[in-house]
Order: sequence, then structure tokens, then C-alpha cells
Amino acid sequence: MKKYLLILASLSTFSISQAQQALWNEQQIVSPEIHSDNTVTFRLNAPKAVKVQVTGDFLPTQKIDTPFGQFDAPGVADLTENNGVWEYTTSEPLEPELYSYSFSVDGLRMMDPSNVYMIRDVATVNNIFIVGSKEGNARADLYAVKNVPHGTVQRLWYDSPTLDMKRRLTVYTPAGYEASGKRYPVLYLLHGMGGDEEAWVALGRTAQILDNLIAQGKAEPMIVVMTNGNASQEAAPGESQSGLIPPSMQLPKTMEGSFETAFPDVVAFVDKNFRTIKNKKGRAIAGLSMGGFHSHHISKQYPDMFDYVGLFSAAILPDQNASSPIYQDYDAKLATQFAKKPALYYIAIGNTDFLYQANQDLRKLLDERDYPYEYFETEDGHIWKNWRIYLTEFVPKLFKK
Amino acid sequence: MKKYLLILASLSTFSISQAQQALWNEQQIVSPEIHSDNTVTFRLNAPKAVKVQVTGDFLPTQKIDTPFGQFDAPGVADLTENNGVWEYTTSEPLEPELYSYSFSVDGLRMMDPSNVYMIRDVATVNNIFIVGSKEGNARADLYAVKNVPHGTVQRLWYDSPTLDMKRRLTVYTPAGYEASGKRYPVLYLLHGMGGDEEAWVALGRTAQILDNLIAQGKAEPMIVVMTNGNASQEAAPGESQSGLIPPSMQLPKTMEGSFETAFPDVVAFVDKNFRTIKNKKGRAIAGLSMGGFHSHHISKQYPDMFDYVGLFSAAILPDQNASSPIYQDYDAKLATQFAKKPALYYIAIGNTDFLYQANQDLRKLLDERDYPYEYFETEDGHIWKNWRIYLTEFVPKLFKK
Repeated sequence: MKKYLLILASLSTFSISQAQQALWNEQQIVSPEIHSDNTVTFRLNAPKAVKVQVTGDFLPTQKIDTPFGQFDAPGVADLTENNGVWEYTTSEPLEPELYSYSFSVDGLRMMDPSNVYMIRDVATVNNIFIVGSKEGNARADLYAVKNVPHGTVQRLWYDSPTLDMKRRLTVYTPAGYEASGKRYPVLYLLHGMGGDEEAWVALGRTAQILDNLIAQGKAEPMIVVMTNGNASQEAAPGESQSGLIPPSMQLPKTMEGSFETAFPDVVAFVDKNFRTIKNKKGRAIAGLSMGGFHSHHISKQYPDMFDYVGLFSAAILPDQNASSPIYQDYDAKLATQFAKKPALYYIAIGNTDFLYQANQDLRKLLDERDYPYEYFETEDGHIWKNWRIYLTEFVPKLFKK
Repeated sequence: MKKYLLILASLSTFSISQAQQALWNEQQIVSPEIHSDNTVTFRLNAPKAVKVQVTGDFLPTQKIDTPFGQFDAPGVADLTENNGVWEYTTSEPLEPELYSYSFSVDGLRMMDPSNVYMIRDVATVNNIFIVGSKEGNARADLYAVKNVPHGTVQRLWYDSPTLDMKRRLTVYTPAGYEASGKRYPVLYLLHGMGGDEEAWVALGRTAQILDNLIAQGKAEPMIVVMTNGNASQEAAPGESQSGLIPPSMQLPKTMEGSFETAFPDVVAFVDKNFRTIKNKKGRAIAGLSMGGFHSHHISKQYPDMFDYVGLFSAAILPDQNASSPIYQDYDAKLATQFAKKPALYYIAIGNTDFLYQANQDLRKLLDERDYPYEYFETEDGHIWKNWRIYLTEFVPKLFKK
């Protein structure tokens, strides 16, 4: 019977040649290999290659010059070859973190064929790996699936009468939601420019972070709703009737008021279809970059809707060209919002973020008017590492009253 | 403001170099390009490469010899180079279908960097594309997201007391489920060896097929439950506490009775947590390959549980080594199952499948005993193309009484 099982194992995939490779005992490459001391080895079997490099956020960043100024880009390391297998081991143990990387083979960017774990971010796919801590108490341990009760993640479609569209939504409900009969507070969690309703679950590790923080008693059980902030899109690339077209680099219709104006459609749908606490005390809104911009404007436009507001590396940008009523009467709306004393207004940013100064300007404005807020500053810039950190910091502050 | 938006667009990803490539107007490659006549062009920018090939199931298969006999493998085509860009266009228009492919660059297998759409099947990742028909009435048009009401897809965890594990489950509920208050019948849909609870949604296009068949009035609105048939796994690779380890090619604990014995745990969970029709008339079970084996044994073990049974390229294998009570008293159990007159017993297989003869032997046995069943034979072998076809054929037959 074993023979049949082997054939089955190989033929249950359409990529018979790959399966055979394993079954016929060709050389198997392990990559990345995370050693017990948290150094990591990358390997690629490429006998004909002349130069193989790895790039990723586990390497020190390098400065690159662009027409818009100097930015940090991931570092690059050379692999060395032995019997056709190229290899690179980090010189130092890596800190616990979720890292991403890709290979370059004679100048051609490629995924690591030994690592099936990849995440699409806008138009780019990267391999990922997670370095945890031995003690299991590092922040990055929150990003891994642990032996704790797991929430449910659903992709569903809501009706937006304001945008005259059906739109896709990702919703996390905490472990026990199905059976408890209880009502739960809701965090609305918004992505950045170019992202979509998959971003926070994929790169943000929202489900794992919430599962783990709730299991540790550090966060209240809550629903997390992740929208698509591009008002011209019905769904993430590949999930809409546009088909499997390349994620366009054209700027989507956004930051011009449409999404913010239509946001009550999302809240109405969620309040109707989930057991929510249907008032301001039971709602938070937060977002990264463009999602921070959205959270800033939505929360002041609807001052009775959200008691908790989180701006993560928020794109606080000049908006003089945006004619939407959403952006008008800025000062008066902000005054109304803070007169109603939100339970938390939270601003987080990295100290090398290109939006650092814009966020300091916002703080100055809030300080001048005695509008209270919490401020959290990290190292590094406009990167997912920071947004995962901000989520782990923000979520425990919610719905404690 | 446009300048800021451009910076945002580039910096909202961690792959700044890729984003820049688009923003700084470097050469953009479109691949695959599906032309209006359904020929398809593949392209790769690889100036230093010596030989570039594409392999995939859109090419005529080639025979390969293995220790277990001769099998069909996907064909291979050479790309030709012009100014560093390699290109191949199919000589004929492609039939409407979901196709998969990968590149080989100087012998190194790689994904198409211009195509973010990839599906993992066990330990291998392939790029995919869909060729539709102009009229929109080809079978493969059922595999695409259309402008129809969309169901919800959830990943959730159930308790299996029999296996003493929490296990992950994918559940499709039809459009309107949340608001209708109605009860729905349930199709339990099982994967093949090496697959997991993601397989039917990813490669099987279950959500799109169900959305489209229901919208066309060809299928009853139903819930589809996709389990993990490997009794030793709690969840798909990357989704369990095992972490981001390579999907092992070790044979998982399966086809030895554990999964089949524990199946009532799944049904109990689904009946408790979803608005189901909680009787035999409201339940179907079907599976591909190993999942067909499971469906065969589960449906006869619990003859009052399922009124519809589908065996898709079922792994009808000698089971003399399997000591589980599930496989004992085969003839008597089958007699009991058919004495209770299932509404449908459905067998489908491809005429080049290595399990073709085993399925003909099963038919002979059923014929000899006058056990009624429907039989559907296609071309080709043990491949996802066939399993999508069988799903589109099987689902319209369910729950019509």
C-alpha cells in the first residue's frame, strides 16, 4: 500500500516534477534555516549562477538616492557557492521579528524556491520567516500561531450604497464569538496606500496578534474589521471581477473624500451582521499611513462614532487640493471631536519616517489647543515592522472602561 | 500633493526597490498577457540568462518515466530573447481554463516576477492565470470572480474531542446567509493527499464556482465545509503552531481510519455553529483522490449522515493493512448504505488516471450488487482541472428534492 500512497502523494499536486524531486531523493535544500542561536542560513541550489545575493529587512539598511530624496532600502548580502549550492549565514543572531527577503540570481529577482511562505504587498511578493525568542515572550512571538484559542477570519462582501458598490471586507472575530451570545467592541483597522483588505491580516499578522494578546489577558476580546480603503476598488487584486490583472501602480481613488464619506456604510453593515456594541464606547478606528489619514478625518467627521483613534505613521498631508466636504472646517470639526473627549487619541511614528515632521506638526497643533493624546515613537521608518509594533501597543489600550 | 502621494505609494510597501522600479519608469513587463484571441504571451526580463523556459499545464503533456511507471508531466517551451526580454507566445489560442506555470532560467525554477497570482499546492508554488470565453458561458468562466452576489469564506477552528485537537476549517456560506435567517444544506468537501483545508478554495475555486452556479440558478444555495484530512495536522502549513516550517513530504497520518472516525466531530460543530439542515437530506460529502477514499468510507460508516456522495478520482486502494474498524465489514456496511437508498452516489474519473482501473473495479462491484450510482468520465488524469470540472458537475445535482 505504501507504493500507492507515494504515487498519490506525488500526483495529488499538478506539479509532479517537484513532488518527484522529493520522492526520488534528489538533493533537498532547507532555506531559510533558523539555527538555535537565531542566526539564519539562506540556501539556493543554482549550479549555473555566477552571482547570487539575498536582500531583506534582516540586513542593515542602505541609503539610496531618489528624485524625492534619500531613503532607506534593505541591505544586500552575497551568497557563496559550494557544489552548486549557494549559501549565506547571518553574521549575528537576528532579533525576534517577522522578516522578508528575496534572492537575486545574476541580477534577476526571485523567490526562494525552498520557502513556500510568501506575502504579497501591493505588486511585490516576498518570502517571509519569523524569528521567535526562546522564552516566547518577545514581541515577535505575538506574530506566530501559538497554542491558544483562535479567532475566526472571514472574507465577506458588504453593500456600500454611498459608493454604489458591493465591496470586500476582512473580519476577525475572537475565539468564542460563535458560541458566546455576547456583544463585542469593534476595532476598524485601515491599510496604507496600495494596500487592500488583505494587508493587515497578511503582513500585519492581526489574527495572530489578537489571538495571543486576548489569550494573555492583555486585550479585551474584540472584533477587528479590515476594509478596502481604495474607493474605486471592490476588492483586493485577484478577488474582484477585474480578474487576475497586475495590481496597477496607478494611484487608486483615495484620499479625496470618497472612502471617508462612505465609511458609515461599513459600520452599519458590521453592526447589522455581527454582535457588536453599537455605540461610540464600543468602537475604535486606526490605520497605517494613508489609513492613519483616513482615521484622522473619519473620526473628526463622525465625532460620535469612535471613542478610540489610532494614527500609525499617519499620512498627515497638505489637503488644499482636496475639495471633499470631509476636509472642510478642519479646525471646527477637530474642536468638536475633542470637546466630546475621546477615550484615546494615539499617535505613533518612527523617528526616520518621511512623515515624522508632519506628525510632529500635528502634535504641535494638538498641544497648542490642549487636545490630549498619547504619543509613541520608535526607531526606523515607514515599514510594517513598526505597524505590527503599534498594533500590539494600541490594542491593549482599547475598551478597558 | 501628488509628490507626497507618489512617495506614499512607494513607501507603503517594504519593497521600496520594486515600487521605485514602477515609479521611476523602468521597463515594465506584462506577463502573462492574454490576447483577445486567447493566445498567451509570457515574458521575463533576464538579460544575463542563457536559456529560459516555461512549463505549465497549458502546454501539451510529455511522458516521463518514473520507478512507478510512466506518467504525464507538463510540457516545456523555450522563450526567445530580444534586448534582454525573453518571450514565448502560444502557437494556438488556449481553451478557457485556469492554468498554472513557472519559469526555468538556466535550469533554476522560478516564479514569474510580473505575476503576483500564485497558488501553493502542497510544497510547490505555481503562478496561475485564467483564460475565459468571450461569451462568458464556458465552464472556466465559473472559476472567475463575476458580478454576482458573493458568499462568505471563513477560516475557523473546531474542537475534535475524538482526535483531542483544535483543528482548522474553511467554510463557505452562500450570499445572503447572514441576513436570511434560513437553514441551508451542507456539502462537506475533502482534499487529496498532501492537501489541506486551503486546497479546495485555492486550486478548486470553490467560492467562485458556488457563487456563479448559485447566481445562475443552477445550484441550490448551500454551505461548503472544507476540512483538513490529515489527522496529525491541526491546520495547513503556516497556520499551525508548528510555525513556518517547510510542508513536509512525509506522509501525514491519514487513510488509517483516524480522520474518518473523527468526522462526526466536524458535523456536530457545523450543525451547532451554522444554520444547517440537520439531517441526512441536507448533507453531502465528496472528495478528490484521498478525499474520495475518505468520502467512500465515511459515508458507509455513517449511513444515516449523508444523502449525496461524490468520489472524484477516488483513491480506491487496497486497505488490507489498515486495521481501523472503519475498514472492517466492508460488504455489510456498503449493503446497509445502499439499502438506505442514498439520493446520489457519484463517481467521476479521468480516462488516463492511474486510479482509473481501481474505479472501474469499484463500479463493477456496485453493478454486480445493483447499487445505483452516476458515472462521469473525462479525459486527462489525476489533476485539478478535472476536480474543478467534477465540482461544477456534482454541485447542481445536490439538494434538489
